[in-house]
Amino acid sequence: MGRLAYVNGRFVPHRKGQVHIEDRGYQFADGVYEVVPVADGHPVDENLHLDRLEYSLSALRIAMPMRREVLKLVSHEVIRRNKLTNGLLYMQVTRGVAHRDHKFPKHAKPALVMTAKQTKPPGAAELNAGLGVVTRPDIRWKRPDIKSISLLPNCLAKQEAVEAGAGEAWLVDEAGRVTEGSSTNAWIVTKDKRVITREAERRILNGITRRVLLNIMQAEGYSFEERPFTLEEAESASEAFLTSSSNFVMPVTKIDRRMVGNGEPGPLTQALRKAYIASFAPDGSIQ
Amino acid sequence: MGRLAYVNGRFVPHRKGQVHIEDRGYQFADGVYEVVPVADGHPVDENLHLDRLEYSLSALRIAMPMRREVLKLVSHEVIRRNKLTNGLLYMQVTRGVAHRDHKFPKHAKPALVMTAKQTKPPGAAELNAGLGVVTRPDIRWKRPDIKSISLLPNCLAKQEAVEAGAGEAWLVDEAGRVTEGSSTNAWIVTKDKRVITREAERRILNGITRRVLLNIMQAEGYSFEERPFTLEEAESASEAFLTSSSNFVMPVTKIDRRMVGNGEPGPLTQALRKAYIASFAPDGSIQ
Repeated sequence: MGRLAYVNGRFVPHRKGQVHIEDRGYQFADGVYEVVPVADGHPVDENLHLDRLEYSLSALRIAMPMRREVLKLVSHEVIRRNKLTNGLLYMQVTRGVAHRDHKFPKHAKPALVMTAKQTKPPGAAELNAGLGVVTRPDIRWKRPDIKSISLLPNCLAKQEAVEAGAGEAWLVDEAGRVTEGSSTNAWIVTKDKRVITREAERRILNGITRRVLLNIMQAEGYSFEERPFTLEEAESASEAFLTSSSNFVMPVTKIDRRMVGNGEPGPLTQALRKAYIASFAPDGSIQ
Repeated sequence: MGRLAYVNGRFVPHRKGQVHIEDRGYQFADGVYEVVPVADGHPVDENLHLDRLEYSLSALRIAMPMRREVLKLVSHEVIRRNKLTNGLLYMQVTRGVAHRDHKFPKHAKPALVMTAKQTKPPGAAELNAGLGVVTRPDIRWKRPDIKSISLLPNCLAKQEAVEAGAGEAWLVDEAGRVTEGSSTNAWIVTKDKRVITREAERRILNGITRRVLLNIMQAEGYSFEERPFTLEEAESASEAFLTSSSNFVMPVTKIDRRMVGNGEPGPLTQALRKAYIASFAPDGSIQ
């Protein structure tokens, strides 16, 4: 049996998953999403993702499409029916279908789509090389803390990164400070081994991997600061990395074609990747 | 026969119009649109709308889904099959369906949806009252000159306007200057009868009604300036109005609950509405 999607109450073959042309997600980007890592058949940090889903929905005044416990049941069923062991569970909620009009519709019912995708974590070669990033002006709207599907500028930035031979774009605000990546959070390690990442205010998405990693660092006594860092600081950092639900902790070895440190993944980055992965897959099955 | 939609090559009943859940319009707001007024069964300023469609697509490097002449044929057929006399033709083009990944897909085919809606122009009572607008910070992305479906902040602003008892939100940039409305262009008339609207740079959408009206003003010898105006200027203006494909030229009689001029539609605004409508419906069938 092929891939199945959950679409507004029904499980359908993925390729037949459809929504109405006047779903407000399609016409207005009026919706939010979550990408939940799945390890060994189980969603990782599920409640944190659902907390954030509720945060995003509430910021847009969209109702939860079903109670959290039911949403969990459905998502577990998506995982089960797709025989997903390691990969990503995607869920998207929009304000629903209504005649096109910018203002909120009175009677729309939130739409819910879930899909599953088997993925492979990066191999040793990829981890040893690390990723290059390019930097681009942050031209996104002013509320990226809401995990909305309004992702056009993110797509444009990622495409520019790929065309420049890099793996991600780090977005830079008007004051020359890095906000975050196009789909990842941005981190550096200073020469005196302090880990820096931007504080979670309205200019970045408060990544779940970011938050879990900060908790780990707190518990294990790492030295870190949540504050914006400039492009200049990033260029003179001894290590750099990015985090996301699909990348976990990924070394950044180049920024705009300039090597970070000696151009190899840093020891602190590698230790943090191990520590993060151990938080959900302590058996060493994922590197 | 009910309303019909054109969806990726087929005419289908409007309520059955569907797109795939991995259409990039649905997951990434990776697409653009046009709303073309239709008067007496004919699209108004069709070529200007198609010019702008091509501009938006080209800025996002999405191919035209079909040649312009064919697109016209299809859109005329949408008008014909829907027996649309006066109303709006909506067309939306996205980058197409692809496995979810921010970067551009290699092989996606642009998706095209068109719908038609019969509308009534505002009646005398509405025109005599004019619209109130509220002002809100412009939190949109930095490329609203691209007519993308990334409209979430526009929806939020419009909703705030409606909840404040107003008809539109005028968005204000960091320097305290009005950019435009959430779905309309913004205009004022100074006490010495100069008409002011922001120049069409990257911070606003270059509205078709806006452009046509500027041409009319040029031809008829009105005094006007394309430059940003501040909120303070707007509040002390003698007239104000907004333009869009669905509103044509609409008087603005209140800004943040403060009356514009004497609180009634201004004479210049009314003359410009007449002149604009006469450009496509000279028979007086629309007021």
